Amino acid sequence: MTQQLHDPAVRGFASDNAAGMHPEVLQALVTANGGHVASYGGDPYTQALTERLHEHFGPGTRSAVVLTGTGANVVALQALTRRWESVLASDQAHVLHDEAGGLEHVGGVKVTALPTVDGLVDPADVERAVRHADSPMRAPVGALTLTQSTELGTTYSVEQLRDLVRVSHGLGVRVHVDGARLSNAAVSLGVGLGEMTTALGVDAVSVGGTKNGGGFAEAVVVRGDGSAPGVARALARLVKPSMQQSSKTRFVSAQLLALFGTDLWQRTAAAANDAAALLAEAVTSAGARVTRPVQANGVFTELPPQVAERAAARVPFHVWDRHFSTTTVEARLVTSFDTTTADVEGFAQVLREEFARESAESVGA
Amino acid sequence: MTQQLHDPAVRGFASDNAAGMHPEVLQALVTANGGHVASYGGDPYTQALTERLHEHFGPGTRSAVVLTGTGANVVALQALTRRWESVLASDQAHVLHDEAGGLEHVGGVKVTALPTVDGLVDPADVERAVRHADSPMRAPVGALTLTQSTELGTTYSVEQLRDLVRVSHGLGVRVHVDGARLSNAAVSLGVGLGEMTTALGVDAVSVGGTKNGGGFAEAVVVRGDGSAPGVARALARLVKPSMQQSSKTRFVSAQLLALFGTDLWQRTAAAANDAAALLAEAVTSAGARVTRPVQANGVFTELPPQVAERAAARVPFHVWDRHFSTTTVEARLVTSFDTTTADVEGFAQVLREEFARESAESVGA
Amino acid sequence: MTQQLHDPAVRGFASDNAAGMHPEVLQALVTANGGHVASYGGDPYTQALTERLHEHFGPGTRSAVVLTGTGANVVALQALTRRWESVLASDQAHVLHDEAGGLEHVGGVKVTALPTVDGLVDPADVERAVRHADSPMRAPVGALTLTQSTELGTTYSVEQLRDLVRVSHGLGVRVHVDGARLSNAAVSLGVGLGEMTTALGVDAVSVGGTKNGGGFAEAVVVRGDGSAPGVARALARLVKPSMQQSSKTRFVSAQLLALFGTDLWQRTAAAANDAAALLAEAVTSAGARVTRPVQANGVFTELPPQVAERAAARVPFHVWDRHFSTTTVEARLVTSFDTTTADVEGFAQVLREEFARESAESVGA
Amino acid sequence: MTQQLHDPAVRGFASDNAAGMHPEVLQALVTANGGHVASYGGDPYTQALTERLHEHFGPGTRSAVVLTGTGANVVALQALTRRWESVLASDQAHVLHDEAGGLEHVGGVKVTALPTVDGLVDPADVERAVRHADSPMRAPVGALTLTQSTELGTTYSVEQLRDLVRVSHGLGVRVHVDGARLSNAAVSLGVGLGEMTTALGVDAVSVGGTKNGGGFAEAVVVRGDGSAPGVARALARLVKPSMQQSSKTRFVSAQLLALFGTDLWQRTAAAANDAAALLAEAVTSAGARVTRPVQANGVFTELPPQVAERAAARVPFHVWDRHFSTTTVEARLVTSFDTTTADVEGFAQVLREEFARESAESVGA
Repeated sequence: MTQQLHDPAVRGFASDNAAGMHPEVLQALVTANGGHVASYGGDPYTQALTERLHEHFGPGTRSAVVLTGTGANVVALQALTRRWESVLASDQAHVLHDEAGGLEHVGGVKVTALPTVDGLVDPADVERAVRHADSPMRAPVGALTLTQSTELGTTYSVEQLRDLVRVSHGLGVRVHVDGARLSNAAVSLGVGLGEMTTALGVDAVSVGGTKNGGGFAEAVVVRGDGSAPGVARALARLVKPSMQQSSKTRFVSAQLLALFGTDLWQRTAAAANDAAALLAEAVTSAGARVTRPVQANGVFTELPPQVAERAAARVPFHVWDRHFSTTTVEARLVTSFDTTTADVEGFAQVLREEFARESAESVGA
Repeated sequence: MTQQLHDPAVRGFASDNAAGMHPEVLQALVTANGGHVASYGGDPYTQALTERLHEHFGPGTRSAVVLTGTGANVVALQALTRRWESVLASDQAHVLHDEAGGLEHVGGVKVTALPTVDGLVDPADVERAVRHADSPMRAPVGALTLTQSTELGTTYSVEQLRDLVRVSHGLGVRVHVDGARLSNAAVSLGVGLGEMTTALGVDAVSVGGTKNGGGFAEAVVVRGDGSAPGVARALARLVKPSMQQSSKTRFVSAQLLALFGTDLWQRTAAAANDAAALLAEAVTSAGARVTRPVQANGVFTELPPQVAERAAARVPFHVWDRHFSTTTVEARLVTSFDTTTADVEGFAQVLREEFARESAESVGA
Repeated sequence: MTQQLHDPAVRGFASDNAAGMHPEVLQALVTANGGHVASYGGDPYTQALTERLHEHFGPGTRSAVVLTGTGANVVALQALTRRWESVLASDQAHVLHDEAGGLEHVGGVKVTALPTVDGLVDPADVERAVRHADSPMRAPVGALTLTQSTELGTTYSVEQLRDLVRVSHGLGVRVHVDGARLSNAAVSLGVGLGEMTTALGVDAVSVGGTKNGGGFAEAVVVRGDGSAPGVARALARLVKPSMQQSSKTRFVSAQLLALFGTDLWQRTAAAANDAAALLAEAVTSAGARVTRPVQANGVFTELPPQVAERAAARVPFHVWDRHFSTTTVEARLVTSFDTTTADVEGFAQVLREEFARESAESVGA
Repeated sequence: MTQQLHDPAVRGFASDNAAGMHPEVLQALVTANGGHVASYGGDPYTQALTERLHEHFGPGTRSAVVLTGTGANVVALQALTRRWESVLASDQAHVLHDEAGGLEHVGGVKVTALPTVDGLVDPADVERAVRHADSPMRAPVGALTLTQSTELGTTYSVEQLRDLVRVSHGLGVRVHVDGARLSNAAVSLGVGLGEMTTALGVDAVSVGGTKNGGGFAEAVVVRGDGSAPGVARALARLVKPSMQQSSKTRFVSAQLLALFGTDLWQRTAAAANDAAALLAEAVTSAGARVTRPVQANGVFTELPPQVAERAAARVPFHVWDRHFSTTTVEARLVTSFDTTTADVEGFAQVLREEFARESAESVGA
């Protein structure tokens, strides 16, 4: 029997993928187990999930279950582009920084970075980049990828997304949303998942479950062939050679069904978002400046390097930017579905103590 | 709450990935849940797994946890080859037929088929193919991949593997074992996992858990840098851009730990192998010829097309070769850790009934 | 000043790319030189060539100038397939054996070999392979590539090509012709270049100039967007990222214009084909069996290994198959636009001498 | 016979690849023609070239003849990196902007842009980027590519290159020089080709001939296996699958031999550089500001959009940056080996006329 090797009472702010599975997700695995079902997506859990995703994203959409967030993004962006087309991404994008070149490696796709403010792309920069690439010497832009909510904890408004889709489509460019934290954004904006994506014309969405209480639960949703000819077929075909096809698909689908077949996705995202709001206040009250608008489940804050280092040794979190200013770093704190008020207050207390220690040492110096 | 959408009492012979998770594997997910641990493999379950894999495959080996069998093969074969090298595979190989071109798509690697008898590669064919490719016009062979047990239910002996490794290494070619059913082979041969792979000089092994009672549990093991310089580093680096890196790695590692950290892998493989032996007898006694040596958990049998079609409609299995002879097809029956004697006997009864029906119809015709 | 480092009086039968440029092709380079013209295909030579290719292949066709035969094939096959589709090729195909895995490396495209007789593909094998690949586990077939004339010196008849196109299109598969020796085939059949390709529905053609008196002169022609939507656009876009775009394109186009803008392509191909016919007779009269129908500019012949080795040391040619029989090898002799009757007779004499020497030695032994 | 379709008396400043071949290069093609020689690089011209490149770049170096500048860069950068490594390039780099994503398409290699001043990379930015990528989530940096002379007409000093190599090697990063205009840089600095590359430790060099009086003449030189294990072998193997292997290699090698086997490379580069210096003066005297240091054969100048457009319609050149300031564009003027003093003076006169016209129109407005 496998022994428990970790302390389930310990939590931090390192990432929402440091958390485990929500009990209802775990229960779904138990429910889906036993007996034999068709493999490779022919099972009833995948079928039921497909129907629920239609309800979220629209009846004409098509979906595929995949294994990782990187996998979701790379499958989606391959489906949206032809062999010779490039992709535009925010200069903070996960696909650019934290996927180890998966899009280039698997799809051979060139990615060009767009400047951002707080992780948000401006339509004017999309237009400039598309025109720059419109040359026989260059890889024309096939798709724009936007992260919602962004890597910096901010969230595009529905209006901003509508503008970005309109400008992109006007330039012949398809739009992808990296929704590793899509639920957090939807809850933050108080809208449905489709309302801020496919309903606006977004061509493909990476729908994240893992960071919101799932264990390994991601999907890609695309608009159907009426609106984006060929993309649905491409999606169906690209999952397998991109190595995102689970054989026992029922276990991935069951997790997604637990999240998106009930209101669990809203409950877990709301819990994380609320904890982030609380954390932003607590951090501020502890004397640290919050550096980005807190619109989902991430809190960024400016700290002296020593304070950051010592605090992170006590409660795990990541330093995002080691060169934020000459005397400070920028830290990233991520809340999860299971973050408690006590976790938040405990961390604020740690910060206070480390600020005090820093202050004492600099007086002593 | 997720509803149960399938009948857990129904089983067939379609594939060992139609089965679910062994209860001990499922329990390992429960045990590994809760609290926060480091993501991307920094968790204690992955660390413990690494140690157990060292025990199985040798202290100098290195391992990586991946998500699918295709992913394991493609990561391993990329790690064993340089950008310009090709791979030799059996003409029955999963990597050639059932991975949708993943090796070419993800790695840009050319694959050349070798002739086989019952799915087994002959060293003389390896040598011939390596010499053919030894030209400035051609992609030199970097690696040979062997499936153990094979796609046709046969198993290389330790001696055969030793010869294949010796010949390959003598030609400067590295050896990979696709071990989606490695446990079945080891149990069949009565040897350890490393005894028939790394101990013989095999350079990389795809270690399958999913088909042997896991849910989504695969790993790659390579010999360390002493014996195959650079391969261990390549393995560590290729998992992420090949989109095989789970963020909540603890859940994959916990499954593998349940299997390979105890004797569960032997119990589940032995159950499946024993069921296959029983099935071969039952199928024969029902009047069907078994076409391949039964050395693991697959049984191949020759059936009239009508019999195959009707039987498969009652108990799921796949027709492997629709053109086996002018009057018969070859069917593939796969047993699982949870196949029961009643399943086997029930299937033999189905075959008898369908043979009788066929006979009656042809008399009537 | 560059010194002449070779003897321009020496010729052999190693390959049609051992020959140099026809004087009219060289003269075209002189004519196209001097002054400034637009680079990357914006020059008047490329424009004139485009018009002449329309005359050969049909007014709706589109063309691109490329740099190598491998480049032509790989650009064409990428244009004909989607990211997830595979390609069928003859088991003798250049793309399979002599392009070092370029299609897999550059395009990530899986290639499956079809059995052949004398290098010729049978439509029934196309159908079988397409149906085999029609599974969610496999890479569906996007294109069939045929070599005309083949790597074994044979030529598909117009009727055979029509059948292959009909069967392929009926299966939703596009057809490519590797025409590295397209002119030799056309002259052999007494038809025009388009008559045996685009007029039959062939979707893309690699039009070879290099092996027929050019220096570095290849093109790809595709049917226009009316018949194969998207392919023309794909062609235009894929040349550059596939690194087949010459900057001073005028020099490639001028060569192709010298060949295909006059009847030079017919004169050079006829000279090579005629020399091959003569060579087949001479070889036979010298006592060697010709092993393949001689239908273009290649002659295959069966020789004792010693004879082959000694003859090749005197007049260069390649051994094609070292294992043709237990006592013989198969040699390949290729004629060129500049092969003379004296070359043919001289080679027959060499063969006679080496047969005699072999005979004397075996008597002495 | 091919007709002359262009006016050989017309020249402009669009690009150095708008020019044709220097007469000595063309003569080399004539000399290398006739008879049969071994194809695929087995000819005496390629052998002689190899020796001359050893003299330029050092006896331990290895070289390969390729077909295009993009091909040279992509082959070299694949040879310098492992499957999972990324490349750093200047934000002005040809490989980033004008190769249509060839490095990503062919090699699957991720490219990250570094900030520049006048096209020149700073070692501190190299270090920052390498450290940023040093994470399991990211593609580690395998190589830095520098353009010499740069896309903006500037030239790294030997000291700057030495620093960049030292910093890169200290970080475990290999260095590539894109030398499409290597000769212009060498002449500008008054040093040899190897002196500013391989002698400093540069691991691979794209040696350009096409832009300096060649027709289609590029090579890659790498340091031998003593200094960079495996790179020489990688180079030898990557040319063919990267579709840069000419079959009649003698014609590419003969051109390079004409350039680098004599002092022609210096004469042509000096002619272009001198013309650029003259042009910078002429442009200034005509009233336009030169925006970048003129250190090779490119002159950048700031012009009102109307003046640029009208002048370019009379004498071809490209607008480099349409958004240089709110009222001006930045134009790029490139000189060639065949640019004459009359060409320069004529262009200055055109500028003067267009400035006057602009001035008259704005007075009239």
